[in-house]
Amino acid sequence: MNTARHYTLTLSCPDRVGIVAAVSAFLASHNGWIVEANHHADNESVRYFLRQEILAESLPFDIDVFKSKFAEVAKEFRMEWRISDSAIPHRVVVLVSREDHCLYDLLYRWKSKEFNFDIPCVISNHDVLRGFVEWHGIPFHHVPVTPETKVKAFEETIRIFEDYCGDTMVLARYMQILPADICDTYLGRIINIHHSFLPSFMGARPYHQAFERGVKLIGATCHYVTTELDAGPIIEQDTVRIDHGDSVADIIRYGKDIEKAVLARGLRYHVEDRVLRDGNKTVVFR
Amino acid sequence: MNTARHYTLTLSCPDRVGIVAAVSAFLASHNGWIVEANHHADNESVRYFLRQEILAESLPFDIDVFKSKFAEVAKEFRMEWRISDSAIPHRVVVLVSREDHCLYDLLYRWKSKEFNFDIPCVISNHDVLRGFVEWHGIPFHHVPVTPETKVKAFEETIRIFEDYCGDTMVLARYMQILPADICDTYLGRIINIHHSFLPSFMGARPYHQAFERGVKLIGATCHYVTTELDAGPIIEQDTVRIDHGDSVADIIRYGKDIEKAVLARGLRYHVEDRVLRDGNKTVVFR
Amino acid sequence: MNTARHYTLTLSCPDRVGIVAAVSAFLASHNGWIVEANHHADNESVRYFLRQEILAESLPFDIDVFKSKFAEVAKEFRMEWRISDSAIPHRVVVLVSREDHCLYDLLYRWKSKEFNFDIPCVISNHDVLRGFVEWHGIPFHHVPVTPETKVKAFEETIRIFEDYCGDTMVLARYMQILPADICDTYLGRIINIHHSFLPSFMGARPYHQAFERGVKLIGATCHYVTTELDAGPIIEQDTVRIDHGDSVADIIRYGKDIEKAVLARGLRYHVEDRVLRDGNKTVVFR
Amino acid sequence: MNTARHYTLTLSCPDRVGIVAAVSAFLASHNGWIVEANHHADNESVRYFLRQEILAESLPFDIDVFKSKFAEVAKEFRMEWRISDSAIPHRVVVLVSREDHCLYDLLYRWKSKEFNFDIPCVISNHDVLRGFVEWHGIPFHHVPVTPETKVKAFEETIRIFEDYCGDTMVLARYMQILPADICDTYLGRIINIHHSFLPSFMGARPYHQAFERGVKLIGATCHYVTTELDAGPIIEQDTVRIDHGDSVADIIRYGKDIEKAVLARGLRYHVEDRVLRDGNKTVVFR
Repeated sequence: MNTARHYTLTLSCPDRVGIVAAVSAFLASHNGWIVEANHHADNESVRYFLRQEILAESLPFDIDVFKSKFAEVAKEFRMEWRISDSAIPHRVVVLVSREDHCLYDLLYRWKSKEFNFDIPCVISNHDVLRGFVEWHGIPFHHVPVTPETKVKAFEETIRIFEDYCGDTMVLARYMQILPADICDTYLGRIINIHHSFLPSFMGARPYHQAFERGVKLIGATCHYVTTELDAGPIIEQDTVRIDHGDSVADIIRYGKDIEKAVLARGLRYHVEDRVLRDGNKTVVFR
Repeated sequence: MNTARHYTLTLSCPDRVGIVAAVSAFLASHNGWIVEANHHADNESVRYFLRQEILAESLPFDIDVFKSKFAEVAKEFRMEWRISDSAIPHRVVVLVSREDHCLYDLLYRWKSKEFNFDIPCVISNHDVLRGFVEWHGIPFHHVPVTPETKVKAFEETIRIFEDYCGDTMVLARYMQILPADICDTYLGRIINIHHSFLPSFMGARPYHQAFERGVKLIGATCHYVTTELDAGPIIEQDTVRIDHGDSVADIIRYGKDIEKAVLARGLRYHVEDRVLRDGNKTVVFR
Repeated sequence: MNTARHYTLTLSCPDRVGIVAAVSAFLASHNGWIVEANHHADNESVRYFLRQEILAESLPFDIDVFKSKFAEVAKEFRMEWRISDSAIPHRVVVLVSREDHCLYDLLYRWKSKEFNFDIPCVISNHDVLRGFVEWHGIPFHHVPVTPETKVKAFEETIRIFEDYCGDTMVLARYMQILPADICDTYLGRIINIHHSFLPSFMGARPYHQAFERGVKLIGATCHYVTTELDAGPIIEQDTVRIDHGDSVADIIRYGKDIEKAVLARGLRYHVEDRVLRDGNKTVVFR
Repeated sequence: MNTARHYTLTLSCPDRVGIVAAVSAFLASHNGWIVEANHHADNESVRYFLRQEILAESLPFDIDVFKSKFAEVAKEFRMEWRISDSAIPHRVVVLVSREDHCLYDLLYRWKSKEFNFDIPCVISNHDVLRGFVEWHGIPFHHVPVTPETKVKAFEETIRIFEDYCGDTMVLARYMQILPADICDTYLGRIINIHHSFLPSFMGARPYHQAFERGVKLIGATCHYVTTELDAGPIIEQDTVRIDHGDSVADIIRYGKDIEKAVLARGLRYHVEDRVLRDGNKTVVFR
């Protein structure tokens, strides 16, 4: 967590000799001070992944000049890359239904500036959480979803998201399945929290499934949404111990805590550009 | 862990008023000193589960008299029950293939008397671990298993198990699927360690499956063997964190540690009569 | 978590034969249906600890009659005992300073009825969290504490606590040390969350101490307040992994999550009468 | 875990612009293929820490030429640095007393080539574990230590360590305190496993101390030995949950498992050059 203004450069490219040398020579030639650096070589895909945090004030130019200059290096190595500026908080639009534990948790983290993000608005298919959201000074949009209005409702949802210049959509226990075209268009920008340790207990009522099977731990999974339900790239997971004495209600209670923790961690990794997709997997530079 | 000689009484029966009163009145009337007691009421099956450790020397009679006297109480409440004597160690026959991490671990725990069990013999379908087993003074039986000899091999295995008066068979990474009739006959007496967090990644090569899916934790599961592969009652599970930097070889290495720990805990619970089956689930009085 | 109305009986007494028999005979004679039972025999203090949840509707009388009838049993065994009624929620007065993570967390759990407690009021030595508390419909009392006003301030605090008929005071990161006489008078009724894994890093700035020492895990401890600072009976603890890359600010951020979780669990155990003091230790029947 | 032969370069130096550029330019100019890279900037000490694994066969020269060529880069940046060759296993001399759980564990990991180390010999102040060590084909040296013979015994110990060209000494529950001069001479080359979560419960009988205090978790700590008892740089720690039902004997049993795991992880990090000392703290590139 670097409080001084910094740029975060992330990239991936086909692995070969000289990637780090080229990037670091570029940065050193402009006096760039690296405050955090992470590397990963994927032997299966033979791709190289890199993340660098650079002190903004150590560079003689702004982020636009950086982009135009770095484009040459990037081209040579066929890099997929992006650079973000810590002075511009990531804009996270939160979608909820009736369950409010993740919402409470995220609003606290936002209010206490626990990591660098804004919540420009909250969208819900129910109108029950308006008061709590608006108390925080955040706009609340009620977009009901019924089988008949589904298409229009999601058009409306996307319109709101774009109106607020959202960077990322978080499904914080939003009990609706997004249309495939939205999943495709916003690939890597929609994050879901699923209340099981995937790939166990996909789909509906995972805690009931866990109770029936008699598992000794339950879990939660934060993942990118893809067209295939609960099968997108996993960002973060965790588990917690239960035992024979725990009813479904107990499991749900324990589960809420693990959901909150896993979503908060996964979202922070994403917001801080620590997550790079690698096929259907993720590289997470914690 | 009570070192003084004690009897462990376990039972389950249809739930109703008066079970604890009847059992504890019986014990108190014979001056029985309870050193540990556990209870569980299953609201689904409406059954009551109970485990009591009683100091042997506090009772005026031996275990056989206990059994005959307690039979009346048990009958009234339609109890399934058993009582064991800590002076008679549980006899655990270990089955292995080539992987030796669980074997090393179990032999250490046996040698250091970590809990109250004997290993009367080890059976393997390979002859590679004989030296290590025999160094511990434990007989080693090599029973090769081929597709053609399968039926005979398992008859031989059961014969050895029975010759040694085995109480429990542990499949300590024994890479063979037992015939259905053995699973049925010895239900609740065969324990397996599966190298995944079930129900995820059933069947073969679970660590490779986990690597492919990109999960952020891997696990292991200790369960009773039933005719349905990797679907028996779960005794114990645990998970450990991995990340994108971990190859399949790394995952296997982390996995071995979690397998050892989960099998050792699960086996101890079983040996100490802490595990009561409840349909396809378990009550584990830790 | 039993939703039907139930009484929770907890007791401890010198260990001897017949305790369980006497209690369960008493319950069975009045048709009491036991939904949860826990026992513990402490070999050091030679005391027996017991907790029973009994379905209220299974008994032919109310809690006052229960008390008068049970007093005879209790007397014979020299029991310290209490019985509580799930229809009467535990009243938890929360004390805070400026840090609001535990407050947010507790208010969510209260609002969502995660367990059976009320927050009749919040008391703070600062006036910054009034809005959030009052939004929840909970009275907020600002009682400033300065070196000069300390005695009066704590008298005022106790007066408010008593006016609201508080059962328990929770110091949810309340940065004041209570006077010794309050600690003594309310022994077992004041719960603190300390932001270290006690007994490591007692006193001030434990996260800074942890950073300096270079530990690889940090922790939090929920304990009863006694006159000796950070040395009271421990109810619950947990730890979380950190590494060399984590600054003090990162450690504080991770720490908040573990503090919230540990305080919430510890408070729930206390509220549900799962915690029995045993000298300077606790028996926690989870 | 890279199985192809590789060199591991580790270094630390005062932080400034251009370190990574210089190192990676050097590697790229010789066609060095980086398979793993880790970086850390310590804001307190203003030092930079770096670890690189380079494929041996990608370089046109051997490790000696590497050393002479890299010396120039290192000099410019005032680096403390070392490079190791995966073809030459790290030589770990194990010191034990009577407790054998860590020894069993380490011998298994050595035998199964879990990571890249050799155990040239085992030294003990008792003669009880000779058979098990020698069965593995490893020389066993019995060096008794009494108050009178202490000086001579440690001279003998060091002589044996040096005769076997030991790289690292592991105190695997070796119940003797090493003389200060040995601690100083071999700073960073002697690893101890302490059976508590340091800095809690330093010194003797930590499990008894933990039992007395009533903590809800116990732990173990792997650290470098310094002249100050149990106060050296921490490499790895972990904790495990206990409860009121656990006797000291139970705690010791749980503790053994956590000691084995923590020592094995810490030793692997050290052997793989993942641990860099940073004052009295460590940077651990996992």
